[in-house]
Amino acid sequence: MPEATLYPLANYTFGVKEAQPEEDPSVHARLKRLQNDFEEHGMRRSVEAVLVVHEHNHPHVLMLQIANAFFKLPGHYIDPGMTEEEGLKAILNERLGPEDGVGDMEWEIGECLSTWWRPSFEQYMYPYVPAHITKPTERKQLFVVHLPPHKVLTVPRNMKLLAVPLFELYDNAARYGPQLSAIPHLLSRYDFNYEK
Amino acid sequence: MPEATLYPLANYTFGVKEAQPEEDPSVHARLKRLQNDFEEHGMRRSVEAVLVVHEHNHPHVLMLQIANAFFKLPGHYIDPGMTEEEGLKAILNERLGPEDGVGDMEWEIGECLSTWWRPSFEQYMYPYVPAHITKPTERKQLFVVHLPPHKVLTVPRNMKLLAVPLFELYDNAARYGPQLSAIPHLLSRYDFNYEK
Ligand SMILES: [Zn+2]
Ligand SMILES: [Zn+2]
Ligand SMILES: [Zn+2]
Ligand SMILES: [Zn+2]
Repeated sequence: MPEATLYPLANYTFGVKEAQPEEDPSVHARLKRLQNDFEEHGMRRSVEAVLVVHEHNHPHVLMLQIANAFFKLPGHYIDPGMTEEEGLKAILNERLGPEDGVGDMEWEIGECLSTWWRPSFEQYMYPYVPAHITKPTERKQLFVVHLPPHKVLTVPRNMKLLAVPLFELYDNAARYGPQLSAIPHLLSRYDFNYEK
Repeated sequence: MPEATLYPLANYTFGVKEAQPEEDPSVHARLKRLQNDFEEHGMRRSVEAVLVVHEHNHPHVLMLQIANAFFKLPGHYIDPGMTEEEGLKAILNERLGPEDGVGDMEWEIGECLSTWWRPSFEQYMYPYVPAHITKPTERKQLFVVHLPPHKVLTVPRNMKLLAVPLFELYDNAARYGPQLSAIPHLLSRYDFNYEK
């Protein structure tokens, strides 16, 4: 089993920075932009970070909550020509790095945990390429990001960063959706070391 | 992304051998035996094999169907003192190897895909150790088993070996239960090569 070391949530310091508004005003606008981008650049590549801490030796995943409503992992799509690892580092600095770009900008990107595919310009994604789909419109990959023992995480003012325990995510697609509620399965092959 | 090569279902030959009846007549009897074994040997270790083939370039998982009813992966618990890998090879030979022990008895055991924990002597398992549980009663691990291009698989007469597509398992806990329906998520980090 691969090992991963987790540190207590209390080891991390949370700062606040300028708000980062949603880019698209609606789901429709988002899917429309996906379609325009697809016609220009082909398949969109997205990446998301799974940052894991512990409380009482139980793993918790750091998630952004936007406008007291839905949860998401820190992530975004990446530019054509960027690697997933470069892209995810840039995204983590934009979302959780220091506001002025001065300070700790290092992130240790670990293994890919899962891959989701969007077959069309609709909302649904699947953890496989659906049968007979030859040109998926988007591929989203989740990566474990290994946190150091201490770190400052600076969160946009319009978001909250919450540590959600695995037992809350598990079997809870109703609240967290199919992607986030599967994270406990994906992490289950790790042998976690719970450090102080 | 780790790579894995899949071959068509039609590459494999299926034989029949003597029936292998269930060891326990009821769920109650099974959990009672778990408790007796736990008192004697401590935590039970179980292993299951995820054997993947393809049809039309879509992955399918080989599953045993017992008495035209429930589905399960080839697997069993292992003896104290045996490694998971040794145990799984012996189980695969008992379930799917040649009847007379003459023939291909090789299995290439790959990575652990997930780990399930049983906190008590009840039916429920979780893909993490539930909070404040210090002595789980069972740990079950799923391993990818890499199939060669061709192989004879000999199936006990009271079971059927079926190739279930990922799109059938996905989001189908109602039919396949929480463990089997999560296999598409677990396999999604592999980059599959579809060979002939
Ligand atoms: Zn953006
Ligand atoms: Zn506690
Ligand atoms: Zn047995
Ligand atoms: Zn087909």
